[in-house]
Amino acid sequence: MREAVRLGDSARGRTAPNPNVGCLIVKDGEIVGRGATGDGGRPHAEAVAIADAGDNARGATLYVTLEPCAHASERGPTCSTLIPAAGIARVVAAMRDPDPRTAGKGFAALRSAGVDVRTGVANRAARVSMAGYLSRIERGRPRITLKLALSIDGKIALPSGESKWITGEDARAHVHLERAHSDMILVGRGTYLADAPRLDVRLPGLEGHSPRRALLTRGEAVAGWETLSSPQDVYRLHDVNDLLVEGGSATATAFLAADLVDRILIYRAPILVGEGKSSLGYIGLDAIADAHGRWRIGSGAHLGIDRLEVYERDREGD
Amino acid sequence: MREAVRLGDSARGRTAPNPNVGCLIVKDGEIVGRGATGDGGRPHAEAVAIADAGDNARGATLYVTLEPCAHASERGPTCSTLIPAAGIARVVAAMRDPDPRTAGKGFAALRSAGVDVRTGVANRAARVSMAGYLSRIERGRPRITLKLALSIDGKIALPSGESKWITGEDARAHVHLERAHSDMILVGRGTYLADAPRLDVRLPGLEGHSPRRALLTRGEAVAGWETLSSPQDVYRLHDVNDLLVEGGSATATAFLAADLVDRILIYRAPILVGEGKSSLGYIGLDAIADAHGRWRIGSGAHLGIDRLEVYERDREGD
Repeated sequence: MREAVRLGDSARGRTAPNPNVGCLIVKDGEIVGRGATGDGGRPHAEAVAIADAGDNARGATLYVTLEPCAHASERGPTCSTLIPAAGIARVVAAMRDPDPRTAGKGFAALRSAGVDVRTGVANRAARVSMAGYLSRIERGRPRITLKLALSIDGKIALPSGESKWITGEDARAHVHLERAHSDMILVGRGTYLADAPRLDVRLPGLEGHSPRRALLTRGEAVAGWETLSSPQDVYRLHDVNDLLVEGGSATATAFLAADLVDRILIYRAPILVGEGKSSLGYIGLDAIADAHGRWRIGSGAHLGIDRLEVYERDREGD
Repeated sequence: MREAVRLGDSARGRTAPNPNVGCLIVKDGEIVGRGATGDGGRPHAEAVAIADAGDNARGATLYVTLEPCAHASERGPTCSTLIPAAGIARVVAAMRDPDPRTAGKGFAALRSAGVDVRTGVANRAARVSMAGYLSRIERGRPRITLKLALSIDGKIALPSGESKWITGEDARAHVHLERAHSDMILVGRGTYLADAPRLDVRLPGLEGHSPRRALLTRGEAVAGWETLSSPQDVYRLHDVNDLLVEGGSATATAFLAADLVDRILIYRAPILVGEGKSSLGYIGLDAIADAHGRWRIGSGAHLGIDRLEVYERDREGD
């Protein structure tokens, strides 16, 4: 299942509004088929893996990170029809699909077609890998990630505005990877004016995966960019699973003040800036005690001389 | 030797102006004696370990983190006399003592007394454990550690000044441990006025190890506190190996602007403050490029919900 999650992860940022599912077919202890959701959401991971397995699918076990779909589409047959038709004997799934068009109907269809079904395996890892899709289905908006490149002392620039470069090449390459796994990136007008040409994906083999681009502004629209006039407009983005908010300070502050950030990526450079521009303005905090219990430290990493800190919004205590 | 370094580490902050040395005596593969420099610098680690070993010292190997002393003192015989007298057959040392009164004379005395001597073992770990002593001998001032408790976005307080508590209990306990391993702590007048009663060591078993206290001020002295009128006054502290600068912002800024910080301990809480007090003012930086290459990320740690980030001043590139 870990390999199925990894396959699903690789498709993150390219399958919206569909989930980024991963699928593995195993027969006699050997992997005979692999699949991930295709760009734009089709074909589904199960169809890819079954085609990959060919005749080997017969009698095999299919591992999949999400319940196979039960809702017919003009774009292809349902996976819960396709799987028994290919002769798959057993399905191991990580989780039920919260989309009401499937939501248990996929498992029921498989069972009535004689397929053995087990679910709940590696549930947590699958939820993490499809966090964007799940946010959209469960909360009606994308999973929102805020990215900030900061010094040790939390500055984003000198008083002059100079900010190139806080972080090094490895950290910047990681940002490009994060962009490739986002359906949309968003910036404020200042960052747009300063950095627009750079807001693409420049990684070998991923140049084609630059996400849609959006501007947070109450002013006029810009060609090639979608417009959000306030953070609450994320509820209108029905075909975005993962939204990456790249700054600057006013944009980051607006999303945090609206409690519309689910994950923060801090690219922390081992430098001190001292007097300079702070990363955030007033986010609605009036007592230190109220700041606690909102963010959980996620898994960090060293990126060259810099360090990636990940913080996940903990909404359980709210 | 790792165990000898550990023993020496345990005495850090209590042996100035002497080094915090660790010593282990091994015979037939078993540890028969252990020692660390005593409070105030005497007895020396070797004398403690030899007393601990008793008759087992005869024919044994002595591991020590620093060259045994060769300069006679009214406080006891030199270790390079004591070691052959106890019948030690072999000395394994981590490094030569840069104190000109010993500086190679200890090893020479041991060798001419027929002791087999090997040196340079675990040199780096020993240098780290005695960084304060080495700084004092080699640079004429203590090793200076700056401690800051910061939010993710680098703030130390709300605009109102409220800062209790940025970090949690585990982080605060770690600060007490760091105090116990410092010869002196230093604060600015604002921190003194706000926090004076708290600037002690409150850890079970370590209450007696509160360091000397100093105030950075151009104003009048305070009873029970030593006074530094500028960061450069650290060159007058001839009996302090490890100095811990605890803040606040103006004091931290003054030490950084003077390039008199060797190590930074960031106690990072997983909170966002937004608008608030920055940790540092102008430290002399006028271009981001000049900020790079000064700090190396050291070994961090999780302290409850907080995280300790360690940065070491890298003076090799200067």
